[in-house]
Parts: sequence; C-alpha cells; structure tokens
Amino acid sequence: MYPKTIRKLIEIFSKFPGIGQKTATRFVFYLLKQKKEDIEEFSKFLKDLKEKVKFCKFCFKPFEGEKQLCEICQNPARDLTKICIVEKEQDLEAIENAQIFNGLYFVLGGPISSISKEELEKLRVKELFERIKSPEKFGVFGNFKEIILALNPTVTGEAISIYLEKKLKKLGKKITRLGKGLPSGGELEYADEETLKSAFEGRK
Amino acid sequence: MYPKTIRKLIEIFSKFPGIGQKTATRFVFYLLKQKKEDIEEFSKFLKDLKEKVKFCKFCFKPFEGEKQLCEICQNPARDLTKICIVEKEQDLEAIENAQIFNGLYFVLGGPISSISKEELEKLRVKELFERIKSPEKFGVFGNFKEIILALNPTVTGEAISIYLEKKLKKLGKKITRLGKGLPSGGELEYADEETLKSAFEGRK
Repeated sequence: MYPKTIRKLIEIFSKFPGIGQKTATRFVFYLLKQKKEDIEEFSKFLKDLKEKVKFCKFCFKPFEGEKQLCEICQNPARDLTKICIVEKEQDLEAIENAQIFNGLYFVLGGPISSISKEELEKLRVKELFERIKSPEKFGVFGNFKEIILALNPTVTGEAISIYLEKKLKKLGKKITRLGKGLPSGGELEYADEETLKSAFEGRK
Repeated sequence: MYPKTIRKLIEIFSKFPGIGQKTATRFVFYLLKQKKEDIEEFSKFLKDLKEKVKFCKFCFKPFEGEKQLCEICQNPARDLTKICIVEKEQDLEAIENAQIFNGLYFVLGGPISSISKEELEKLRVKELFERIKSPEKFGVFGNFKEIILALNPTVTGEAISIYLEKKLKKLGKKITRLGKGLPSGGELEYADEETLKSAFEGRK
C-alpha cells in the first residue's frame, strides 16, 4: 500500500475533471520526482489561490488586489454602455485576448452541463439582473444600452441564451448574440481570434 | 490576463505528464471552486510529499516513518532469497496488491522511454548490483538465490531485461523473468491480479 500522503494526493487528483485513478497516481509520482523548492512553490500558490484571488464584485472575474473591482471594471477607458455575458472565466479571457471588445463583462458561472432547474439555479441570473439594473450599487457607473449574450454555441448555451433573452427583454435594452463565425457545436474558449472577431462583428 | 496566482498554477499544471494548457486551466478553475479547507489540505499534503515521504534505503520504495527501510524490507516474514526488480513504484504496488510474491523488491527507476545511453543512466543499475552483492550494507540480511526481472513487457522493458540479464549473469544467481500471461505490448501496472498471478507462476 502506498504511504498515506501519496494515497491522499491520489484521492485528491482523482477528483480533478477528467482524471482517473491511474493518471492521478502518475501525477503524484511525477511530483515526487520534482525538486523540493518547486513543490513548496506549488503548495504556496495553491494557498494563494484561496487567499489572494478574489472575485470582482461587479462581474465575478477572478483578480488579485486590494480593491473590490477587477482591473476591467475599474478601467475608466472601458465602454460602460455595453455588457458582455459569458459562461465562464476562460471565455472572458479568450475575448479579452482577442482585443475586440471594450465594454464590461459578466461571468454567469459554469460550465453547466444541462438546462435542468438545478443547473440553471447555479447560474448568477439574479446577480446579472441586479447589475444591469443598478450597476452603481456594485461600484460601476455604467449605463448599459446593449447586452451581448456571448454564451457557447452549444445546445445548452443556446438554451440559456433564449432563457436569458426572454427575461432580459423586460429591461428594454438592445440584446445581441455572437453571430457569424462561431462554428456550431464548438466551444468559445477554443475559438481563434479571427473567429471571435467575426463573431463580434456579426452580432445581431 | 489571469491574475498571477492563476497564471502560475496553470504553468505548473501544464508540466504535468500529458497535460496541456487548456486542461491545466480547467484544473485551476476547478480548484478555485473548491472549499478553502480542501485547498489547504491539498497544499499540506503536497508539502508532506517532500517532507514525510522517503525512499527505502534498500529497495527505493517510497514510504513514511522514522526508519531507513520500508515496511517490506523491514518485515521478517519476507523471503530473503528472492528479489524482484521492477521499473517503477506503481509496478511494485500492483504486485503487492495481487499478494503473489513474498520476497523483496528493487525499484529500478523509470518510466524510461528509450534505451539510449542517457536514459539507461537514469536507472539504478549500480545500486542494484551493490544491493544484490552486499544487502547487509543496506540493512537487509538477504541471501538472494533468485533475481526476478519484472519489467514491463514492452520493447524498452525487454531490452532492459536483456541488458540486465547479461550483467547479472556474472553474479551466478538464478535469473527469471515474468512469463506467461502478460499480454505483449501491455503495461505491468494495468495487469489484473489473475494475469499477474499466472505471470508469476509461469516465470522461467
């Protein structure tokens, strides 16, 4: 039987998304072969993840710092008339890296695997409404004229978009969706910059 | 851009065997969603990995405790006339779990991907000879009559077996290899107990 520390770490890694017992074991033996300093650094950054990384009060993007708002929501150069709704942090990152959008974001939470009631309740729908209606309550002096639904072009993503669109209509704002360019069935996170660009331009 | 802690963790996970940037990112966001206590525990076990886990002075199996020898090498009930040479810790674990062998082990080190000079030098061949010739120098009062080469039945494993067999012959001991039962091209670590059992019985 493996010593306790190894067993515990295999157990922890086995719970990682897509990782089974065998791969978890490989991870532990890989780590066992690394330098002590590297493991200590790893261990430190893990602790920092819960101690230093916060979620933006407005958009829920993870960030580090003293303030309550992330660097995007704090930036006076951003266009405060547009808000782009994404499923998860990686999607926001993909759009930011493509440098094609200058408004604000909102991370809905996810990934969600189905559109059951339980799964939908995991999404920050109530929070989204509060922020669009009264952004100043969350430290952002926005006046949103356009809401961009940038969810994944998957069955679930489309369903959530329809659901949100219905609810958001009451607010009387322009609602757009990422259009041309995104291959159907794909994942926003994996789209290249050109595809993202034409999707942004082709929004309707 | 992700905050520093997230970037650093993505970088660390990207170096894990078989893990790319995207999977590494998923791991970090998975962790970000876990409870603080769970992350602290993970961080603690990681530190323990380098602080508590030692390698047995004789066989190089990882273990925890005050002694210099692992629980197998310390066990007076083990058969000190047989030594089984395995590539890596997981292989030793698979044989132990099958409860089919009562002798001692030696972890050669690995996995190695080719039989180049550089790769062969990573293996503990010198250490193996020292332990077979004078086990008492390493705290084990063994008198080995049989050396079992339990390497993976892969091209590399077979090549290492031939290489070791040639070198070990000079010691005048009986040298056996795991025989019948192991599917050619497979990995010892994944063999079920029955397969391992017939491989042990069919050794020649």
